Amino acid sequence: MEKTLEFIQQNRERFVEELFELLRIPSVSADPAYRNDVIACAEKVADFLRSAGADAVELCSTSGNPIVYGEKIISDTLPTVLVYAHYDVQPADPLELWSEPPFEPYIKKTDLHPDGAIFARGSADDKGQFFMHIKAFEAMMKTDSLPCNVKFIIEGEEEVGSVSLGGFVKENKKKLQCDCILISDTHIYSSEQPTVTTGLRGLSYVEVEVEGPNRDLHSGLYGGAVPNPIHILSRMIAQLIDDKGHITIDGFYDNVENVSGEERAEMNRLKDNPEEFKKSIGLRGVEGEEGYTTLERTSIRPTLDVNGIWGGYTGEGAKTVIPSKAYAKISMRLVPYQTPDEITEKFSAYFEKIAPENVKVKVTPHHGGMPYLLPADSKEFLAAKDAMSQAFGKEVLPYRSGGSIPITALFEEVLGAKSVLMGFGLDSDAIHSPDEHFGLYNFLKGIESIPRFFENFSK
Amino acid sequence: MEKTLEFIQQNRERFVEELFELLRIPSVSADPAYRNDVIACAEKVADFLRSAGADAVELCSTSGNPIVYGEKIISDTLPTVLVYAHYDVQPADPLELWSEPPFEPYIKKTDLHPDGAIFARGSADDKGQFFMHIKAFEAMMKTDSLPCNVKFIIEGEEEVGSVSLGGFVKENKKKLQCDCILISDTHIYSSEQPTVTTGLRGLSYVEVEVEGPNRDLHSGLYGGAVPNPIHILSRMIAQLIDDKGHITIDGFYDNVENVSGEERAEMNRLKDNPEEFKKSIGLRGVEGEEGYTTLERTSIRPTLDVNGIWGGYTGEGAKTVIPSKAYAKISMRLVPYQTPDEITEKFSAYFEKIAPENVKVKVTPHHGGMPYLLPADSKEFLAAKDAMSQAFGKEVLPYRSGGSIPITALFEEVLGAKSVLMGFGLDSDAIHSPDEHFGLYNFLKGIESIPRFFENFSK
Repeated sequence: MEKTLEFIQQNRERFVEELFELLRIPSVSADPAYRNDVIACAEKVADFLRSAGADAVELCSTSGNPIVYGEKIISDTLPTVLVYAHYDVQPADPLELWSEPPFEPYIKKTDLHPDGAIFARGSADDKGQFFMHIKAFEAMMKTDSLPCNVKFIIEGEEEVGSVSLGGFVKENKKKLQCDCILISDTHIYSSEQPTVTTGLRGLSYVEVEVEGPNRDLHSGLYGGAVPNPIHILSRMIAQLIDDKGHITIDGFYDNVENVSGEERAEMNRLKDNPEEFKKSIGLRGVEGEEGYTTLERTSIRPTLDVNGIWGGYTGEGAKTVIPSKAYAKISMRLVPYQTPDEITEKFSAYFEKIAPENVKVKVTPHHGGMPYLLPADSKEFLAAKDAMSQAFGKEVLPYRSGGSIPITALFEEVLGAKSVLMGFGLDSDAIHSPDEHFGLYNFLKGIESIPRFFENFSK
Repeated sequence: MEKTLEFIQQNRERFVEELFELLRIPSVSADPAYRNDVIACAEKVADFLRSAGADAVELCSTSGNPIVYGEKIISDTLPTVLVYAHYDVQPADPLELWSEPPFEPYIKKTDLHPDGAIFARGSADDKGQFFMHIKAFEAMMKTDSLPCNVKFIIEGEEEVGSVSLGGFVKENKKKLQCDCILISDTHIYSSEQPTVTTGLRGLSYVEVEVEGPNRDLHSGLYGGAVPNPIHILSRMIAQLIDDKGHITIDGFYDNVENVSGEERAEMNRLKDNPEEFKKSIGLRGVEGEEGYTTLERTSIRPTLDVNGIWGGYTGEGAKTVIPSKAYAKISMRLVPYQTPDEITEKFSAYFEKIAPENVKVKVTPHHGGMPYLLPADSKEFLAAKDAMSQAFGKEVLPYRSGGSIPITALFEEVLGAKSVLMGFGLDSDAIHSPDEHFGLYNFLKGIESIPRFFENFSK
């Protein structure tokens, strides 16, 4: 282990420079305009895998973006760790809110990152985090200390619902056979209080459309006498959550896990600074489901958020129009034991039920993902916990995250293996937002934790 | 009169060709990208005025778009008619809903326009309608039959609130001195039932902004615990109108004209086909203020409409974001004796009042306009009514429109003259919408009515 850590220390500056090469590629999967960049990024990832020492590196075509595969099989008798990650990134808009262009990485110190942080779209989610795995693998290879088999699958559609990955995993069940899946696409509670994520929320994402008149109308000539789809959509959205923060969709809470009072008490020991939470995002006050803390609302409780809304004239100046249609993108975060199919169906039925008779509504499901739980007494969790304790020199706690990595449930179903969510970012790293960044300290601690995880898990 | 009408008949095809030249210029005032086209359009209008026989034609600069002025003064002892119009047009988007490009005019027959209609942005609002005045003026000039003085002021900012016109009128009070203002920027009830507009609604137009967190957030990590500005804006919009269709803003109805039962009964004789109304815009059902007919809701009652809404991710695909801000453009149509300043102030106060404490809201007034009334026994109304009766060969009724021409109130205040709203389009001509058009029959009847109005008004 010492040699490996020494190699990492000696090469840390090069690792950052190489990561910058990846960050310069705008591999935005949600927008077809970036298709060529997505491919270029996949090729770059493959190059890095090859030069790190991986075998059988290839770009596996899918009906969407290619999946990068690579492996190092050293013995049939040793366990196999499958590293899963994604090289695609969220769209960077609103561009004007970035301090610097999102695909021109640079390093700047912040209060939470006194050693500096790498600023760029994808720095934390997920390029910076999967690059730790490639570099840790390189360190183990170069110092002859890889203690088990390793496989990489790095996909390009995570930010648009991993549409091709499910089919790929099912078709390549044998190739992907493994004893656990290692994923760094989550965050720790803080650099002082490292955590391993043991739970993830699921997701149901839909787009809705409300149509009033069959064409845009002049609001002077028609105003006051026709259903305005923006008003009606607003009213319908307002109806989805009641004044106690409960989601009103019929049957929405039917299958929600009933977390014990003990577990809730334990969980609430972690996050104890609501003022800091508010301050970090400039809020005057939090809100949410009555009877739950902020930490619970963002982890063990399901939620509903409008992620986008549009309709009518949104350009400069004024236009007096009643639009024909208004639209919204709505997502629901799910907890064990809700399922995306169930919730999407319940949402659709309810949304149609509450629509007034004089409009047409349409609900289009986008994608979904299952919630996930990793028991805190499992071998996988303990290997990760010990690895991070060694690297950080601190006690490591289990943590439930509010985010979603839908593929964890699929891995368990198809490959029969548990996923270990060993992420190293902070939740203040602005992933999905302007000025996304990833701490240099966190990047280094990640690279140091990974060989230890391999060692612990191979014992 | 006979010679004038003969000249019009002989030149009608040329008139249409010349109008096409104007329609080809995309003089969109709401979008600075069209600034050069706006200027080109103003110059074209000036050319047409000059060649029709107007003197002292000039482009008067303003802090915004130029105002085209022209005149023909034949005697100090004769009355003066001031023709007001606008050469700017509404934005053409959504472009994909036009059957043909919006600035490539063409003629097509429709059910309501069996003689054909001119399709193009601005064909009815207002290029086609003010061109009738230039051509009627040309006909009177060429046949030596102009019976009074005439002045033209054709502005380029009507669709963005006539921001420069008020100052211009005040500064040029003497130059614009007149006995009445003649405006063709409204519609008739139908080609079978011509009407003169005797009332217009006023306007208060605002933009609102709701800010929750100070940056965009990941809806997985934060969802359920923070105020989502889209939800809150939706809830606030939903609150602006109650379930009886009443606007809830404090004091909103304080100054509303109480129209007598008799006048309401008279008014409701006109529009008697709600099924046709619904069918024409593909509606399953109308809605609006309880206790009023569709005709009343669109003319004698004030209204509130959201004209645009946006926030969060509105591009292709899915993005799981809680946006920092959400926005809406909201306009209110006013009736006598509401004023835009009063209503804008009441709106702002109410909108701030209903905002939850954990968000910041901002209300930005865009522009406003006063409502307007022309008595049905005035000389101006009677001159227009008789002119149109002669041209159409039909009885002409007074009509209250739901639209706004804010400048009418200013003309009355500064110039001490009444405006005559002698428009010729149909309310189904899709002004402000894709496939805007203007009937050839209406265009011709307009050109024939105008010299008659001049004659009637000069008696």
